[in-house]
Amino acid sequence: MPLSTPNFSFQVEARSATTHARTGVFRTPHGDVPTPAFMPVGTRGSIKGVMPREVREAGATMILANTLHLALRPGPEIVRQLGGLHRVMDWPGPILTDSGGYQVFSMADVSKVREDGVTFRSVVDGSAMHLTPERAMEIQCDLGADVIMAFDQLPADPLNHEQVRIATERTHRWLDRCVTRWQQLGGVDRGQALFGIVQGGCFEDLRRESVAAITRHDLVGYAVGGISVGEGREAIREAFAITTPLLPEGKPRYLMGIGTPVDFFDAVAQGADLFDCVTPTRHGRNHQAYTSRGKVNVRNLAWATEAGPLDPECACPACTRYPAGALRHLCTVGEMLGGTLISIHNLYFFHSLLARIREAVAQDRLAELRAEVLPRVEARYKPEPSAP
Amino acid sequence: MPLSTPNFSFQVEARSATTHARTGVFRTPHGDVPTPAFMPVGTRGSIKGVMPREVREAGATMILANTLHLALRPGPEIVRQLGGLHRVMDWPGPILTDSGGYQVFSMADVSKVREDGVTFRSVVDGSAMHLTPERAMEIQCDLGADVIMAFDQLPADPLNHEQVRIATERTHRWLDRCVTRWQQLGGVDRGQALFGIVQGGCFEDLRRESVAAITRHDLVGYAVGGISVGEGREAIREAFAITTPLLPEGKPRYLMGIGTPVDFFDAVAQGADLFDCVTPTRHGRNHQAYTSRGKVNVRNLAWATEAGPLDPECACPACTRYPAGALRHLCTVGEMLGGTLISIHNLYFFHSLLARIREAVAQDRLAELRAEVLPRVEARYKPEPSAP
Repeated sequence: MPLSTPNFSFQVEARSATTHARTGVFRTPHGDVPTPAFMPVGTRGSIKGVMPREVREAGATMILANTLHLALRPGPEIVRQLGGLHRVMDWPGPILTDSGGYQVFSMADVSKVREDGVTFRSVVDGSAMHLTPERAMEIQCDLGADVIMAFDQLPADPLNHEQVRIATERTHRWLDRCVTRWQQLGGVDRGQALFGIVQGGCFEDLRRESVAAITRHDLVGYAVGGISVGEGREAIREAFAITTPLLPEGKPRYLMGIGTPVDFFDAVAQGADLFDCVTPTRHGRNHQAYTSRGKVNVRNLAWATEAGPLDPECACPACTRYPAGALRHLCTVGEMLGGTLISIHNLYFFHSLLARIREAVAQDRLAELRAEVLPRVEARYKPEPSAP
Repeated sequence: MPLSTPNFSFQVEARSATTHARTGVFRTPHGDVPTPAFMPVGTRGSIKGVMPREVREAGATMILANTLHLALRPGPEIVRQLGGLHRVMDWPGPILTDSGGYQVFSMADVSKVREDGVTFRSVVDGSAMHLTPERAMEIQCDLGADVIMAFDQLPADPLNHEQVRIATERTHRWLDRCVTRWQQLGGVDRGQALFGIVQGGCFEDLRRESVAAITRHDLVGYAVGGISVGEGREAIREAFAITTPLLPEGKPRYLMGIGTPVDFFDAVAQGADLFDCVTPTRHGRNHQAYTSRGKVNVRNLAWATEAGPLDPECACPACTRYPAGALRHLCTVGEMLGGTLISIHNLYFFHSLLARIREAVAQDRLAELRAEVLPRVEARYKPEPSAP
């Protein structure tokens, strides 16, 4: 049975001559994704606090949901009975589910990792649960996302070569089991594509071995995982830099858990196509805004009397329809709508930045855009105090 | 100086032959309000958790904001500097502000009521504050709503005739002072209309006296206040029934703090035109939905596997875009979007009901609509458990 299919395709459209950056289109049964693309995260079935049409209008094409959270509540069978994740999330576009592996290893109280799978305690009610590669496939088939992810093991100590080797080799065996179970369940003919996840921590030899092992399966796409569990920024950047260019040219490359504006520039230059992170909405709920003038704490007193927009270069409803002082007020008094509006703003900011990155890659001037954008965007900004 | 103006007008369009009910159009500088109309409440500058365009699409034409809350934070001067309440709330349509009187008497720790005004402790930081009829006008002029309310005194014990008499007569003197200060500030030429508030608690003699005293001022509209501070439903209904038909035919009549579907039918039959209440959004945040089949606790397990809509007769995004089971999931796990979607649903329900009431009044069949709608709407509803 084939592992890839005409239901899904990836077309590289433009390539940088000087870096690994490229633009392309990832076609899925629920629509096309111009890449490089950022996927907002709808952990438990919603992009927190934001109506789906606001997410769409911000420029999102594909979103992500977390398998472990949805497997605990409402449960995969219920999602299937309700018509699948596209109906449950009111998202007619492409959706990707992670495998639950990251959440199990980073959040849950893992009691036992064996060759068979992982035993852990539910974050909801503390009950003992068991997750295996086969079960991760079954759950994700029930959830019904377009792209489902293989179940991988994150090493407990990403700087211990022996531990990383054991976890990486187990991840390879688990991918074999994922592929077998997924094919039994219908494989790509279900309209779902399986992505493999490259492991290897921060070790170049293990990363290379992992790329070779994972790409033995001719899957629709590949992800780089096992990152951001405490390695530090430089180690992450290096691991991605090693791994990403080794992945097949003609397949989408997904860097999991990325990120921030500087991460996007790094990752795109390394040849990555897809990213996801909770940053826009988590920061939004905490009233931290990314803007063209720099990072902003919306609750700062300096905004109190600002009748102009939070970001004069932004097309979002928070910036085009509200004085910045009104946003500051809503955030300060704790109105829900404050966090919602800043979340929407951050989504617009991220998706607009990705649109500019795609344009820059097509013109092979990503470095220029980076030099133009990053110094301001990654700095802090607040307005001058207005006259009393 | 005139107290009413061509900036504002009220046109009665249809009258019931059998009750005091009527339909009309209340024209304001920011747009027309077909009456009877329900005004959603944006206490601190936002309809809690709901984007303004969702409020508009639900059918709201006019909204309300609370003077006391906005006077405390961000403060009237800041609202004015930010361009006024229409800009701060992103609501280009008509807005009404209450006077702060209700909040002061019902929420705050009132230390002293004197002829001059009220001394109370701020609900934000406990500091001592003083509110007078003049100050209530100044604050509301800064906020800049289309309709502003006179400052009234709510009696501490609405069932004690002597106490109610003292508060009612003071309210009349306070209205004189409101009118004087408001005219000094520009009056109707500012594009703001002052409504007087009839007091008198549950006593017919005091209600009649209050109507006579308040309507000595030829204001743009009149409100019935001093209700729902513990009198009980029957007393409220009776006080409204006494007062409302006594108010001038050609002016809009606003029943403050109303209500629920049964309240709307009662009040409209008594000749009321405008209402406000936090019901749709407060119940929404608590996951209680008004539906055509009855009141629903969305978190009830009976909804878990319901793939159909929460209310098959509703045109709101929650009902047309989500399986009811998905709404139940979002509410159960505590996703913000759950409360937002149920709030939006309730706003659609209330505004659709008012639209049907307007149509019924025009056809003089309000009693028929009431008999058709209320028995179901005010009952509890949950679906049959689905097959396992």
